[in-house]
Amino acid sequence: MSNENGSSAILRRGLMLVLSSPSGAGKTTLSRQLLDNDKQIQLSVSCTTRHKRPGERDGVDYHFIDTATFRGMIERQEFLEYAEVFGNYYGTPRAPVEQLLGSGRDVLFDIDWQGTQQLRDMDTSRADLVTVFILPPSTRDLEKRLLTRAQDPKEVVAQRMAKAADEMSHWAEYDYVLVNRDIATSLNNLKSILTAERLKRERQVGMSTFVKGLREGR
Amino acid sequence: MSNENGSSAILRRGLMLVLSSPSGAGKTTLSRQLLDNDKQIQLSVSCTTRHKRPGERDGVDYHFIDTATFRGMIERQEFLEYAEVFGNYYGTPRAPVEQLLGSGRDVLFDIDWQGTQQLRDMDTSRADLVTVFILPPSTRDLEKRLLTRAQDPKEVVAQRMAKAADEMSHWAEYDYVLVNRDIATSLNNLKSILTAERLKRERQVGMSTFVKGLREGR
Repeated sequence: MSNENGSSAILRRGLMLVLSSPSGAGKTTLSRQLLDNDKQIQLSVSCTTRHKRPGERDGVDYHFIDTATFRGMIERQEFLEYAEVFGNYYGTPRAPVEQLLGSGRDVLFDIDWQGTQQLRDMDTSRADLVTVFILPPSTRDLEKRLLTRAQDPKEVVAQRMAKAADEMSHWAEYDYVLVNRDIATSLNNLKSILTAERLKRERQVGMSTFVKGLREGR
Repeated sequence: MSNENGSSAILRRGLMLVLSSPSGAGKTTLSRQLLDNDKQIQLSVSCTTRHKRPGERDGVDYHFIDTATFRGMIERQEFLEYAEVFGNYYGTPRAPVEQLLGSGRDVLFDIDWQGTQQLRDMDTSRADLVTVFILPPSTRDLEKRLLTRAQDPKEVVAQRMAKAADEMSHWAEYDYVLVNRDIATSLNNLKSILTAERLKRERQVGMSTFVKGLREGR
């Protein structure tokens, strides 16, 4: 619990902001801008067993660990969520997130609907979760963004569209739904969600003491 | 349900924004500024049996009705909440609120904790309710604002402070709690709450149709 809450001195518990979307809806840009704009929230760094690619930094892009270590962490329930994708493990370690939340800082998660479901299923994290689904404004817009290279074969684009349609089918599991028509409006909407959620009564764990002081004339 | 949702074309259902606070915490100023700033929300006009005061307009400040009419409305359950104060009735008529919510417009309620409890107890309004409690930053600040005239006898100020302490004891029944340190920040916080709540999945009643269109490539 922190005593820093913007201009307020009320202790608060941090929150877990989950952003999910089909690829091509602008989530990565929005995440980056939100992190740049708001110093009270930071990105959760995942663990992975896949090999480090050129330019990636251990502890920044991922925590690169071996499979035995990852499996040990699974057994000791040290992940908030994890998945195996094409033979590699990816997961969110619980301890650093818990520490941030406890000190009144917020954590951003860029995960898909399956990871979000795992977070939601945890009794320990449910109350801290704020989930946002980002949608593209139109199919045409999505297609345009997924068509990264003009020479992409038709079936590759069709495959990406099918994957996007599958991800989008889970929009109704989220607390908030944004249609990303333009980045500035969407960023403003995300910031409003963060501001509002920080003002939720149950997150302001120091409020009880504060009001007691007010009522007793201190 | 409206097709006007700021820049979005998704149908949404309106919400009921309840502001409560001890008098002297700045709620009236904040309400007025919010209404001036946001054309999608409007103040709920109460019915009352008390006499019209000079300058008050029927249908704007209150709907002025007689006691028999008021009691008939109570019997037909036409109020969302009502109270009797010093022999006069005050109440929020249900029909105009329902009509506004259904057309995607939001309604602001400036009511105390007792009115808020009545709204909360109604099955019909629970899902539409967003409740905000506004607190003064300090007892000294509250006292200063309650001391409207320098010549107020001490016991009058003490009485007002006791009433404020009583109202404040209900802060924990609200969804959001704001400490009104300065009007600009508090107004911004209120606007963020409104923006966020409008983006809640369950209020965007047109979203299901919108996503269906996206997934089917329309």
